Amino acid sequence: MMKSRQRRLAGRFAAALLLALGCVSLANAQGSRILVRNAELVLTMDPQLGQGELGSLEKADVLLEDGRIVQVGKKLPASGATVIDASGKIVMPGFVDTHTHLWQSMIRDCGTDQTVVGWLSACMRDVGPRMTPEQTYAAVRLSIFDAITTGVTTVTDWSHAFNAGFANADLRALTDSGLRFVFAYCFDPAQEGNIRRVKQEVIDHNPLAHLQLCGIARSGNEAVLAGMVRLADELGVDTNVHLHENIADRQNGQIASLEQAGAIKSNLMVNHAIHLTDEEITLLASRGVRVAHCPLSNMRLASGVIRMPELLQAGIKIGLGLDGGTNDTTDMFNLMRAAVGLQRASRLSATTPPTVAQVLRMATLGGAEVLGLEHEIGSLTPGKRADLIVIDPEAANFAPKVDWPSQIVFNGQPRNVETVIVGGRLLKARGKVLGISEAVWVEQAERLRKPLD
Amino acid sequence: MMKSRQRRLAGRFAAALLLALGCVSLANAQGSRILVRNAELVLTMDPQLGQGELGSLEKADVLLEDGRIVQVGKKLPASGATVIDASGKIVMPGFVDTHTHLWQSMIRDCGTDQTVVGWLSACMRDVGPRMTPEQTYAAVRLSIFDAITTGVTTVTDWSHAFNAGFANADLRALTDSGLRFVFAYCFDPAQEGNIRRVKQEVIDHNPLAHLQLCGIARSGNEAVLAGMVRLADELGVDTNVHLHENIADRQNGQIASLEQAGAIKSNLMVNHAIHLTDEEITLLASRGVRVAHCPLSNMRLASGVIRMPELLQAGIKIGLGLDGGTNDTTDMFNLMRAAVGLQRASRLSATTPPTVAQVLRMATLGGAEVLGLEHEIGSLTPGKRADLIVIDPEAANFAPKVDWPSQIVFNGQPRNVETVIVGGRLLKARGKVLGISEAVWVEQAERLRKPLD
Repeated sequence: MMKSRQRRLAGRFAAALLLALGCVSLANAQGSRILVRNAELVLTMDPQLGQGELGSLEKADVLLEDGRIVQVGKKLPASGATVIDASGKIVMPGFVDTHTHLWQSMIRDCGTDQTVVGWLSACMRDVGPRMTPEQTYAAVRLSIFDAITTGVTTVTDWSHAFNAGFANADLRALTDSGLRFVFAYCFDPAQEGNIRRVKQEVIDHNPLAHLQLCGIARSGNEAVLAGMVRLADELGVDTNVHLHENIADRQNGQIASLEQAGAIKSNLMVNHAIHLTDEEITLLASRGVRVAHCPLSNMRLASGVIRMPELLQAGIKIGLGLDGGTNDTTDMFNLMRAAVGLQRASRLSATTPPTVAQVLRMATLGGAEVLGLEHEIGSLTPGKRADLIVIDPEAANFAPKVDWPSQIVFNGQPRNVETVIVGGRLLKARGKVLGISEAVWVEQAERLRKPLD
Repeated sequence: MMKSRQRRLAGRFAAALLLALGCVSLANAQGSRILVRNAELVLTMDPQLGQGELGSLEKADVLLEDGRIVQVGKKLPASGATVIDASGKIVMPGFVDTHTHLWQSMIRDCGTDQTVVGWLSACMRDVGPRMTPEQTYAAVRLSIFDAITTGVTTVTDWSHAFNAGFANADLRALTDSGLRFVFAYCFDPAQEGNIRRVKQEVIDHNPLAHLQLCGIARSGNEAVLAGMVRLADELGVDTNVHLHENIADRQNGQIASLEQAGAIKSNLMVNHAIHLTDEEITLLASRGVRVAHCPLSNMRLASGVIRMPELLQAGIKIGLGLDGGTNDTTDMFNLMRAAVGLQRASRLSATTPPTVAQVLRMATLGGAEVLGLEHEIGSLTPGKRADLIVIDPEAANFAPKVDWPSQIVFNGQPRNVETVIVGGRLLKARGKVLGISEAVWVEQAERLRKPLD
């Protein structure tokens, strides 16, 4: 058995050491030059750079420098660069997860016979507010490890921020991880001071960090929502709420409360957005509201099937979200095929959106658009941040080569993600997440979960 | 790069050598004694052996001998046994895949914008009949490698048997693999001689092998279907057809053709069974017909949502099928959560069947019942065949412990399957499939796929 006391202690020591070293290696990585060489297929997601919707290039290189993409093309110069050999492999932008709750690895698979309504009572409200900063940190790091494994390079962490200690620990875990993140800090008038401090001290100087303010849309909560809108406008950040996830939400006055608070405008993104009338879709589209779609969560919680064709027809931008804790699996490939399959099975049409190309875009550039980060991430366009993944198709679940873009969607598993780079820094290499080992995070989560029972 | 010419040749030599050794080790394994010791949780799937629907036991052992389960309980004697330490782990019966087409790894993700109707023309009818025995063997072995990875211990291979050479190669791959299998040989009057030979020479003396006869239900094919029924009755085997998979199948006279051929009786199992009226459900139930449900395939091909509550209410037995090639991912965990989530999202109910316990049963004992093998496999009942898997929950995608049975369904990934045992023989250990390496099967499939383009 791995978990003898001796190994546990050694593991914790290693963890502490690597935490300290982490900051140094992160700083160093910003100045590095990396050549991802000779990929069999590069899906740039930028039609200007290659063929078709996915901007595909064959036998191509991607050159990264100072944390940004410098060039995409054939036979790029390797001088002074660390070379990553991508022969026979697929290179594409890292996945953008537009909606999750990272702390919820602590309540994985709680209340699996509940809709979101019952689940909120049975699982979330009971555990979350009792979590110490140490527990929060451990839970978030475990989720991040899992996210990196599946090739997520930007995560949107809708933090319930039950108190300032919880929010700070959540944010510290994100900052320490090396992942690019949008921290959606749930507005609470009592935490306004901490939100301002976080913006200034933690977010603004970190190129990996972005802030949003989140809130609860419901009748009676208009004053708090208005406070969220006011502070978001002042800080120049987006707002983020759950909308019509469960059919019962239609009775909660969610849209009216948002409208009264002045929230329904172009800096708003909404999660789930399932039970919408044609008129509501038109309203959201006319105001430039964007949607995080979470099909695995919507299936687990019996939330329903999003009206994707109607949303896209109205011009609403859609990204994908893993929605940790109510999903519960962190598998972006599984998420993409669920997004496709749920629409197809419901509508008995294999050409209903999303197509394979559409869902690959939703999982990358589309997600970036939902977050308002499309000028920074989501495609391998020179000048953007160096966030990419290398997929190895030479595996029993993926080979032989038939139609690789389709194989990513319908055959991919986290194990096929060989390399993950965020801002020019390697987070996963040769199939292994770098830094503190999986066993350490698992052991910490197991140990810290127990007092919450 | 791994794929230098030298390594390829070395790999092929190793493959040939291990193929020769495979038969020896298979024979040896039948006499071995294995103690799977100190599992944190054993889901026996037999309510007589433990708590609740899943027959759960904590801190228990499973003793295997001569390819069968001998005893399940605490602190069993280890004398003379090879010990597998399952401390901290979950032990359960191996998964039973009730419907797949193993050769279709050669057409993975072909025609991903098609329903089954377009897919049959675009992908299957073009490639399948042109496959040589060598190509068939390689494709089937690749799929089997993948199936073992995800914890499948019994596979139902609906072989199109385009010709006798195809059928024999398919069957040879199954026989060589060590997996338990049901070979559904598609009846063709021209192949009746080969079917009889296969039954006698390949199936009857192999405790891992079972035979079914399959056919195509459609108006105009009644004579062939009647031939299938006649030979199946004579050989004492089940029959197996696709039924009302696509909405268009309702126009093909499928049920009438089966009825005219005398096929609708207790030795018939049907795949998909989506578009059924109440009357048709009553008919199938009254005749004891069983169903293989393939939710991932049904999503990919826009086939629709099975009427699971109505089928279960009528007393119809349901198992799960991966349906390779039209799914395309071989991930039994993904399959279980799709089975749950598709029903929930369609019906906006988190308590609609299948529950977590029901879907775990469908993937094991329920599948065995569909195949008529419930007295042999599907639960860890003493006397049954020694087919089981060990799941390691100490992974970033699975930990911490909250509700393990739910975590298997909603969090599980193939990577969590640490050990796979079939008939007392280890096929996967310490997370690796034993025998010929993945790289060899992948390389062969890649090489042999090219001539089919």
